[in-house]
Amino acid sequence: MAIHTPVSEVGGRHPGLRNMLTAAMCVALLGCLQAQELRGHVSVVLLGATGDLAKKYLWQGLFQLHLDEAGEGRSVSFHGAALTDPKQGQEVLAKVFESLSCPKDVAPGRCAALKDQFQRLSQYHQLKTVEDYLSLSRDIEALVQHEGLREAGRIFYFSVPPFAYADIARSINSSCRPGPGAWLRVVLEKPFGHDSLSAQQLAAELGSFFQEEEMYRVDHYLGKQAVAQILPFRDQNRKALDGLWNRHHVERVEIVLKETVDAEGRTSFYEKYGVIRDVLQNHLTEILTLVAMELPHVNSSAAVLQRKLQVFQALRGLRRASAVVGQYQAYSAQVRRELHKPDAFRSLTPTFAGILVHVDNLRWEGVPFVLMSGKALDERVGYVRVLFKNRACCAQSEQHWLGEQSRCLPRQVIFHIGHGELGSPALLVSRNLFRPALPSGWQEAEGPPGLRLFGGPLSDYYAYRPVREQDAYSLLVSRIFHGRRDSFITTENLLASWAFWTPLLDSLAHEAPRPYPGGAENGHLLDFEFSGNQLAFSVPQPEQLVPGPASALTPSDFQLLRTKYRDSPLVTAWPEELIEKLASDIEAAAVKAVRHFGRFHLALSGGSSPVALFQELATGHYSFPWAHTHLWLVDERCVPLWDPESNFQGLQTHLLQHVRVPYYNIHPMPVHQHQRLCAEEDRGAQVYAEEISALVTNSSFDLVLLGMGTDGHTASLFPQSPTGLDGKQLVVLTESPARPHHRMSLSLPLINRARKVAVLVMGRMKREITLLVSRVGHEPKKWPISGVLPDSGQLVWYMDYEAFLG
Amino acid sequence: MAIHTPVSEVGGRHPGLRNMLTAAMCVALLGCLQAQELRGHVSVVLLGATGDLAKKYLWQGLFQLHLDEAGEGRSVSFHGAALTDPKQGQEVLAKVFESLSCPKDVAPGRCAALKDQFQRLSQYHQLKTVEDYLSLSRDIEALVQHEGLREAGRIFYFSVPPFAYADIARSINSSCRPGPGAWLRVVLEKPFGHDSLSAQQLAAELGSFFQEEEMYRVDHYLGKQAVAQILPFRDQNRKALDGLWNRHHVERVEIVLKETVDAEGRTSFYEKYGVIRDVLQNHLTEILTLVAMELPHVNSSAAVLQRKLQVFQALRGLRRASAVVGQYQAYSAQVRRELHKPDAFRSLTPTFAGILVHVDNLRWEGVPFVLMSGKALDERVGYVRVLFKNRACCAQSEQHWLGEQSRCLPRQVIFHIGHGELGSPALLVSRNLFRPALPSGWQEAEGPPGLRLFGGPLSDYYAYRPVREQDAYSLLVSRIFHGRRDSFITTENLLASWAFWTPLLDSLAHEAPRPYPGGAENGHLLDFEFSGNQLAFSVPQPEQLVPGPASALTPSDFQLLRTKYRDSPLVTAWPEELIEKLASDIEAAAVKAVRHFGRFHLALSGGSSPVALFQELATGHYSFPWAHTHLWLVDERCVPLWDPESNFQGLQTHLLQHVRVPYYNIHPMPVHQHQRLCAEEDRGAQVYAEEISALVTNSSFDLVLLGMGTDGHTASLFPQSPTGLDGKQLVVLTESPARPHHRMSLSLPLINRARKVAVLVMGRMKREITLLVSRVGHEPKKWPISGVLPDSGQLVWYMDYEAFLG
Repeated sequence: MAIHTPVSEVGGRHPGLRNMLTAAMCVALLGCLQAQELRGHVSVVLLGATGDLAKKYLWQGLFQLHLDEAGEGRSVSFHGAALTDPKQGQEVLAKVFESLSCPKDVAPGRCAALKDQFQRLSQYHQLKTVEDYLSLSRDIEALVQHEGLREAGRIFYFSVPPFAYADIARSINSSCRPGPGAWLRVVLEKPFGHDSLSAQQLAAELGSFFQEEEMYRVDHYLGKQAVAQILPFRDQNRKALDGLWNRHHVERVEIVLKETVDAEGRTSFYEKYGVIRDVLQNHLTEILTLVAMELPHVNSSAAVLQRKLQVFQALRGLRRASAVVGQYQAYSAQVRRELHKPDAFRSLTPTFAGILVHVDNLRWEGVPFVLMSGKALDERVGYVRVLFKNRACCAQSEQHWLGEQSRCLPRQVIFHIGHGELGSPALLVSRNLFRPALPSGWQEAEGPPGLRLFGGPLSDYYAYRPVREQDAYSLLVSRIFHGRRDSFITTENLLASWAFWTPLLDSLAHEAPRPYPGGAENGHLLDFEFSGNQLAFSVPQPEQLVPGPASALTPSDFQLLRTKYRDSPLVTAWPEELIEKLASDIEAAAVKAVRHFGRFHLALSGGSSPVALFQELATGHYSFPWAHTHLWLVDERCVPLWDPESNFQGLQTHLLQHVRVPYYNIHPMPVHQHQRLCAEEDRGAQVYAEEISALVTNSSFDLVLLGMGTDGHTASLFPQSPTGLDGKQLVVLTESPARPHHRMSLSLPLINRARKVAVLVMGRMKREITLLVSRVGHEPKKWPISGVLPDSGQLVWYMDYEAFLG
Repeated sequence: MAIHTPVSEVGGRHPGLRNMLTAAMCVALLGCLQAQELRGHVSVVLLGATGDLAKKYLWQGLFQLHLDEAGEGRSVSFHGAALTDPKQGQEVLAKVFESLSCPKDVAPGRCAALKDQFQRLSQYHQLKTVEDYLSLSRDIEALVQHEGLREAGRIFYFSVPPFAYADIARSINSSCRPGPGAWLRVVLEKPFGHDSLSAQQLAAELGSFFQEEEMYRVDHYLGKQAVAQILPFRDQNRKALDGLWNRHHVERVEIVLKETVDAEGRTSFYEKYGVIRDVLQNHLTEILTLVAMELPHVNSSAAVLQRKLQVFQALRGLRRASAVVGQYQAYSAQVRRELHKPDAFRSLTPTFAGILVHVDNLRWEGVPFVLMSGKALDERVGYVRVLFKNRACCAQSEQHWLGEQSRCLPRQVIFHIGHGELGSPALLVSRNLFRPALPSGWQEAEGPPGLRLFGGPLSDYYAYRPVREQDAYSLLVSRIFHGRRDSFITTENLLASWAFWTPLLDSLAHEAPRPYPGGAENGHLLDFEFSGNQLAFSVPQPEQLVPGPASALTPSDFQLLRTKYRDSPLVTAWPEELIEKLASDIEAAAVKAVRHFGRFHLALSGGSSPVALFQELATGHYSFPWAHTHLWLVDERCVPLWDPESNFQGLQTHLLQHVRVPYYNIHPMPVHQHQRLCAEEDRGAQVYAEEISALVTNSSFDLVLLGMGTDGHTASLFPQSPTGLDGKQLVVLTESPARPHHRMSLSLPLINRARKVAVLVMGRMKREITLLVSRVGHEPKKWPISGVLPDSGQLVWYMDYEAFLG
């Protein structure tokens, strides 16, 4: 990847040299292919040309594009389009053109000339019917022909409400595509759905009209100068950052967007979206991918997009406990007023969120990425802060520390997006870290005297700011023109982001956010802290802030329901609580067993429910006596241990990788011996039984964790199994109705010798069998689970509400 | 453990109530047994009663003891003893008694009376001959008889130079022990040796005269009020600290003693000791054990001493890289002047040291304990700082943070030993952490306005200081009297500490410390930082500070010597460098293999040399592709895998516990099958050979790491072995001349199929065989190592200088 130097800045005075340079740099630099494509006429069609966004940002962006590209001898025409009739449309545009502004360094006379020029290249078109689109297409073709050029491509910028997308898209596709050899780019503005499903539907619809590479979804934060600087900064300072930009050196990453305004006047939109959909799912997540991604070695849009996708793949799934949410106190009243809701209405829409994200790859594992955004906060500011670990010890007392030298002062890199006390985009690098390359088009920044930022005076930083502050849309329009797809959201990227956020959004849907007064009065009410995989507010909710009635529904307010199931104790709760309770119970059993016997023999089942349990045990239970725990498998599929389908593989990925169980305390089932799977002649079941007999006193496990299938199976003991339901065999080979068919399993008699058996049943799918099994007697042939009844041990059922209550 | 409330403070006005309370509290409180023992007469004999330490501290301490205990109706007599003749001795003591001071709250008249009383209870004795000791013993017996009491015990305080210890000890043992039923306590002052060996000798000598429980070795830092407060603080705040005082919450612990004075006038002592022996091995290490130890549930000296020893057992061994050392620039000249050394003399004695200590147990694993001390620094201060991890995210901007509430401000506990800006002992606990119990006899502390400590104003802390500042010796004298052995250094504790420090002291013996100018001029020159297991100065040594000639000897200045050995490449270096180089070479091979083939097959030997390599790989090589590495054993002893003698166990402890190798990529040798060890009928060697054939392409390992025995063996292939030196078998059972005799080993033909073979040879013991093998031809029957010659792979020898140069 290379510096994003506009080609125009290179070798300006010597055209020959410039061509040579351009050719030479095309090997390494951006946009060369695109530059080739631009040798021809480009038409930019702004749909919704008379709307607010267009008036406020887009026309100015197009004018800037004209200024940047006209000097390059390129032929570009601009087409405002709307439903408005031509006369009115032209009038609106005329006013817009008057209000356009030139860069500061352009003299007024020259500016007027440039605006005239731009206006001459611009036309208004009314676009209502398919014929209108056809006519626009013909106009463009005529224009190109008149200029004696070939057509390079057409850009359609959708600055229209989402409901209009489908019709416009269809019309463009059917009647306004450029001819062969020219490209089409359609530019789309959010929202791009409000969850995974709606985003998929929207994407599928657009996909029926456009190719993936034709679509440019805008996230305007990617056009903010400080955000656009993240990758170039990482690239230009590779040498200094290579050793630093990883889990060994980064303490945490904060991605923050704080607003002082509230949602008043916009609640009809906001009430449906909330802060996570409005800011975190898009802006902050995109920024996260730029900070976390592996830098590609070549500067291509495709490479960048690919690396961004890899970040999504590495994101650890969010849980309810990954988030804290708040809502400013006036919000519900605003919603009631603006949306005519009854007096009793209380909104559950969060206006503040703090989220803990983990990127589970070698570079970032264990580094907290904290995303935070909210309305009605004490200041308006946006920034990305990469804080490095403090591993220095200073022999001098604090008053002698020098900002440039002392490693004991904070070491950080800050991409200051805007506002705040600094009031402008900036790049800050602690002087005790390294001296960064001055980004092209940036200069050293100064601040008001006494300004302190992120714990130190401005003088503690190398501080840079853009020479010319540029609006995000101007930058993005230029990137669209140059086909820089990496500054936009691809369908894959969008769906990956929704897939990441949707489970959290679902789990928050019925929870009341913490109310906060707004502004500086928030005090420490919204401060939060993390511990392991969880976030929590730092201070308890004060009583004078009476929460809405819905807040009574937070899971922690529920008592764990305890009752009986099949005459044995039953624990029921919400899924997360249930897993926490089970993990605690297992830990308690482990501690007790190790205290009494020096070891703990735990037999675990595979499947999806235990995954959450493994994660909980791995991340939340520091006192678990792993060094004295033996892990056994309840059952196994006849596949190699490293097969993703292997139960052992789940155990390995979600538990063993995170805790310290000695190698020889791990007892996978010997399903794979002599390069064969569960061959009778390898006597795997007998081998495992012998291992159990040798190591486990009386072959009585301290704890056996079971599940229950929708057919009533448990372990790999299926209904009508000829083996394992009774008899003397401890371990048996069985057949499953589902693939892979061959299994190895502990037998019911062995399971029933355990000191404790826990059966974990989760999810709505289990409702029917739960009900059925509650009524049947001891019929292991029909329902193997009904045969679970420890001889002298204890049986406990753990069911979530969905499995138990349906 | 309970609060150390002096019994005298409880129920003073109501003797009956007091007795009841005393009896009741004896269940839980300290010193009750000892209190029983004190019902009788105690004689305190101060040896060296006319010396400096005695004059300055010890008589005052004894006077304080008198004040504290006389009110308790106890009978104590004081005996000053020295070589000085009686008349002179009495005169010196008379002067000393005049200079004694009473606590501030005692009126002058009362003070004079108390001093008179004390003087009447004190006598001077000349102690030169055995007869003198006998006579002292008789005097004491007469005194006790005269008072009509039984003798409770005798305390002998050795305030004499170490060379006089043995004679005095012998005389006491032979001629001055109290009669049966009374105890003897001898109090010893440092130095207690200058390394493991000398400390052992000294301890053995004293041990021939005294029982372990009779010896009270003084580390006067244990009598400093803030240090003495560490355990009570931890005990009284158990509830708040239980969740915090561990690796999950503690970021680091700093134990610091900075001095502004230098060693001028004391170089005859200092030159032999240096800062590590003078301060770190004793004071700072003792403090570390108090911070790190598990709190016992009962308050007994034995329990505390036991827990302290457990800390020593958990300390990770220091390496050269665990330390940075400095020497103030004027030091060598001072030594030359005071010790009459030649002009060319340059001292290598460190006057500054920073040390990184790791406590490898569940509570502290991964938490850096940084010890720092030095002379000629910019300030005089001593403190222990426990800094907690910062996991808070604050939604408010910094200027709104409140010290009591914001979790974003530093959270720390500080035991301020003395001096510094605060100027007194103190206990500081960040207000955002918890409100600590007010220690008995302490009060809230105030400081000068504007005082900032450890990054915040004093108002950010709950700050306590002793109501009455007490000298360390007064406190220790009282503890000796009460038999609180946990405030003293037991022989086990002493030897454990020397065992911990001696290897580092040895490895520093020939290195020049970094020179520093002294005082505030040191700037950031002595700042250091840690990375993994290593410490390094933060800034490079500036050139204007010309180092002494000896500094040319630091290992990093050496080029790695590269030459040939047995016609193959040879890498020679100092041990640490050699290990680093080998680790880097293995990593490079791994990265390359994984890039080309997707996996890396590494076969490792056991033994002691590879342990350092394993540790280096585990702690220093973050980019090692462990997930794609297969680990094989070169050889194994026929013991269970969990046996400490097993090669696999070394691999497990030093490598596997620290990196993420998938379970099924680990291939221990199957020496233990069907509860039998290396039984022929279990075909273990064949099983392993089949596993290799199945997984390793062409059975050609990517890298095989070998060692070389002093008899020329390699792997477990010993001279004259009937198997493994040739033939087609890949894996063989062999016999070792050393226990355990039975082994399993890769064969020479299999080893020689490897792509790369590295032979690691370290230590002086290997010198002879290294020389011999350099001269022999291909004679594997006699010297199996001579048969290592890869068919088409590469052989590299890695030898440290001791093995190679002798």
